[in-house]
Amino acid sequence: MEFLTGQVKKQTLEISEIITGDYDGKNVRVHGVIHKIRDMGDIVFIVLRKREGLLQTVYEKGNMDAVFSELCEEAAIEVCGIVAKEERAPHGFEVRLREIKVLSKPTETMPIAVNKWKMGASLETRLELRPLSLRHLKERAKFRVQEGIVRGFRDFLHSQDFTEIHSPKIGARGAEGGANLFRLEYFHKHAVLAQSPQFYKQMMVGVYERVFEVAPVFRAEKHNTKRHLNEYISLDFEMGFIESFQDIMEMETGFLQYTMALLERDYKEELTLLGVSLPNTEKIPQVRFDRAKELVAQKYNRSIRNPYDLEPEEEALIGQYFKEEMGADFVFVTHYPSKKRPFYAMDDPEDTAFTLSFDLLYDGLEITTGGQRIHDYGMLAEKIVARGMTEEGMEQYLMTFRHGMPPHGGLGIGLERLTMKLLGEENVRETALFPRDTGRIEP
Amino acid sequence: MEFLTGQVKKQTLEISEIITGDYDGKNVRVHGVIHKIRDMGDIVFIVLRKREGLLQTVYEKGNMDAVFSELCEEAAIEVCGIVAKEERAPHGFEVRLREIKVLSKPTETMPIAVNKWKMGASLETRLELRPLSLRHLKERAKFRVQEGIVRGFRDFLHSQDFTEIHSPKIGARGAEGGANLFRLEYFHKHAVLAQSPQFYKQMMVGVYERVFEVAPVFRAEKHNTKRHLNEYISLDFEMGFIESFQDIMEMETGFLQYTMALLERDYKEELTLLGVSLPNTEKIPQVRFDRAKELVAQKYNRSIRNPYDLEPEEEALIGQYFKEEMGADFVFVTHYPSKKRPFYAMDDPEDTAFTLSFDLLYDGLEITTGGQRIHDYGMLAEKIVARGMTEEGMEQYLMTFRHGMPPHGGLGIGLERLTMKLLGEENVRETALFPRDTGRIEP
Repeated sequence: MEFLTGQVKKQTLEISEIITGDYDGKNVRVHGVIHKIRDMGDIVFIVLRKREGLLQTVYEKGNMDAVFSELCEEAAIEVCGIVAKEERAPHGFEVRLREIKVLSKPTETMPIAVNKWKMGASLETRLELRPLSLRHLKERAKFRVQEGIVRGFRDFLHSQDFTEIHSPKIGARGAEGGANLFRLEYFHKHAVLAQSPQFYKQMMVGVYERVFEVAPVFRAEKHNTKRHLNEYISLDFEMGFIESFQDIMEMETGFLQYTMALLERDYKEELTLLGVSLPNTEKIPQVRFDRAKELVAQKYNRSIRNPYDLEPEEEALIGQYFKEEMGADFVFVTHYPSKKRPFYAMDDPEDTAFTLSFDLLYDGLEITTGGQRIHDYGMLAEKIVARGMTEEGMEQYLMTFRHGMPPHGGLGIGLERLTMKLLGEENVRETALFPRDTGRIEP
Repeated sequence: MEFLTGQVKKQTLEISEIITGDYDGKNVRVHGVIHKIRDMGDIVFIVLRKREGLLQTVYEKGNMDAVFSELCEEAAIEVCGIVAKEERAPHGFEVRLREIKVLSKPTETMPIAVNKWKMGASLETRLELRPLSLRHLKERAKFRVQEGIVRGFRDFLHSQDFTEIHSPKIGARGAEGGANLFRLEYFHKHAVLAQSPQFYKQMMVGVYERVFEVAPVFRAEKHNTKRHLNEYISLDFEMGFIESFQDIMEMETGFLQYTMALLERDYKEELTLLGVSLPNTEKIPQVRFDRAKELVAQKYNRSIRNPYDLEPEEEALIGQYFKEEMGADFVFVTHYPSKKRPFYAMDDPEDTAFTLSFDLLYDGLEITTGGQRIHDYGMLAEKIVARGMTEEGMEQYLMTFRHGMPPHGGLGIGLERLTMKLLGEENVRETALFPRDTGRIEP
C-alpha cells in the first residue's frame, strides 16, 4: 500500500530559492516557459518566464544543437545548468545550460507580442485573446495586485473579528429591486442571480455581528461604459453595534491603509513593473452630498440641475476638487438623498430626505456604496409601504428584524473598479480577468 | 472639513480583551444580544451573546427596574458594570451591572430555541428559519469551522506560490458538458452558469503556473440526496509543471495537514463546542480504482456489477475498508475509468481505459475530484473527436493549448461536503449557510 504523507520538495528551483540560497557556481534544475529566444551566433539566450519573473539561461552552441532545433517561444522546458553572476540579467544571475528537456510545445506561433514590453494590440484584441494576452508580464502583474487587494480586505477584516460567509448567488428575488436582474429557470421555479449579498449579510449580522464576503454579483444593466461590468467581484462587509455610519467609513479607511501597506510589502515588484505609485490613504476627507455639489458648482462654474442626483461628470469633478484643494485621492461623499437609496437605508433623523449613507470616490469614480441600515422592523415595514413595495419574497429577511437586530451597517466595494483606479487604467475591463459586459460572455 | 484617519478604538470591550487585560474589579462597557434572562428573585442573570461567545452579566433588582422591564431575549443592549471573578460563569468572570441601555428590541418572541443546548427542531424547520436558527451557538460554530477550512486552503496555497483568481460564473458553455447546466438569457444571448472554473483555471496555468479559486459553482442536477447541493462552494486549484498526478495528491495532503493544524490552533473553541475530533491526515493511503473494487468485493462479499463505475454504497464501503484495515479517515482512489472522466482528463499511457486521476474519499464520501489534464493540443483535439463532441464554444480554451501549455493538473473540493464530514453531519444542507437544492431557493 502506498501513502501520501504531504508535500514533497521538488528538485526544480524557483527564482527566489536561487537568490536566497547559496547557488553561485552550482548546478541547478529549473523549469519554465520560453519567453524569448535571442540567438547571438555562438551563444543563445533563452529567457524563461516563471511565476516569479524572468530567468535568463544561456546556451553555447555545439553539444546541444539537436535539442536547440526543437525550441521555440512558449514551449515548456526543464533545464539543468550552472548558476553564474551576471549583472545584466534579471535578478543579477543567469544559468549556463548543460541539459534541456522539452516538456511541451505550441503548435502555432503567438498572434500577439506577449514577450515585448508593448503588446501593441487594442483592448478588443487583448480581450479576445485573453488567455494569451494575460501571459504578458504587465497583464499578469495587474491581477497579482488585484490578489493583493483581496488579501488585504480579508486579512484586515479577519484581524477585526469579522467572519467570512458564503451567501447563495441563486435566489428568489434581488435585494435592490427588479430592474437589473438576470433571471433563470430553477427546477420550474423563477429565480434570479444575486445583485448583491445585501440581505444575507444583514441576516448574518444577527449571527456573527461582523461578516464579510468576497464573491461575484450579477447586474443586468444595459450600460455599456468604461466603468460597468455585468458580473463583478464585490467586497462586502456588514457590522453590528455601530454608533453611526462613521464607524463604517473608519473601517473602510482602515482597510485601505492596511492594504496599501500590504501591497507595498508583498507586491512591490508588480507595482514597480506597472509604474504605479500608491495613493495617499492617511486621511480621507468627507463631505456631504449637497455640499459637494455646491463646491463643484462654485469652483467649476456649473449650475446644479438636479439636487438629488450626481451625474458621472459631477462625480469626476468632486474628485478633481478634492485632489486640487487638498491633494486627496479619495473622498467620502455622505448623506445621499433617500430617494436614491434602497428601502433598507437608514434615513437621517435630522432630515429624512437624506440618508446616513456614503459613497467613496476614488479619483472621481464611485468604488464603494455603504451606510447605516434600518434595524427596526416597524421602521422597515413602514418604508416598504411608503415605497409602494410588497413584502413578497422578503419574508425571511423581514423575519430577521422581527426577532431583533442590533444597529448595523456596511458597504460593498467593486474590486475591478478599485483595481482600475489603483493601476491608473481607463477601462474597468482591463482589471477584470475575463470581463462580462453587454456583448461579451467569452472567453 | 472632516477627515477619516482610520480605525478608531471603541469604548466597548470584547470578551478576549477583558480576559487578556487587567479588568478585574474595574468598570467596563460591553454590548451584546440578550441570549438568556434568568430571573432568580433578587438577582437576575442576563447572559449576553457576543461574537466571541457568551458573557454573563448580573443585575441586582432595585435601582434599574424601569430598564429591566424593557429587557427581553434577542434585544440588543449596551451595558456598564464591574468585572468580577466568577468560576461558574463562561470564561470565569461576570459583569455586575450598573447601567443598561437598550439599543433595539425584537417585536416577536423566537419561534425556535436558539438559547437552549438542543434546539429541538427538524432540519426542515431550521432551514426555513435559517437566519434565526444560525444564532444558536452550535450552528454558528459550524460555519466558523468552515471559515477555517477556507482560510487553510488559501493560506496554504498562497505559501506554495499559488495566485488567487476570479473566473466568471456566466459563460457561453459549461466545462463538463450540457447535462446539468442552469441556463439564462444574457442580453439576447444564451448563457449558462459555470459548473466549475475548470477551463479558466487551466487557461490561467499558462499565466501564473499555479492558481486557485474559492467560488460558487452551479449544477442543475436533479438528485435530491443528503450529499447534493445545486449551488456549492468549490475549492479549486490547478498547477503546472507537474511530474505526475501524484504531485496534486501531495499538494492536497499538504493542504489537509495545514488546515487541521490551523483549526486546532484558531478554532479550538468551536471544535470543542461541537465535540469534533480532527481526522488523521498524517498519511493517506492511495489505491487504484479497480483494486479498491476488488478489496471491497472480497471483504464484504459483494459481486462487482459494473467494473467502470463506483456506486455510492461502494464508495462508503471503500471508506469503511480503509478505516477498519488501517484506521484511515481519508483514501485516495486513483485511475478512474476514462469513460467516467471528462474529455480533458489525461489517459494513463499504460492503459488508456483508465485516467491519471483520483477522487479523495473522506469517511466514504467523495469530497475531491482531480487529476492530470491533457496539455497537448493534438491529443485534446483527438479526444474531442473521439467523444463525438465539437469545439464550438471552446475556441479560446483550445487556443490556449495551441500556444503552449506545461504539463498540469488540479482538483476541486466541495467545501460543504468536507465541512459535513469533518463535523460528522449526515446531511450536506447542515453545512451550507443557505442551501440550494431542487426545492429550495429561499431564504
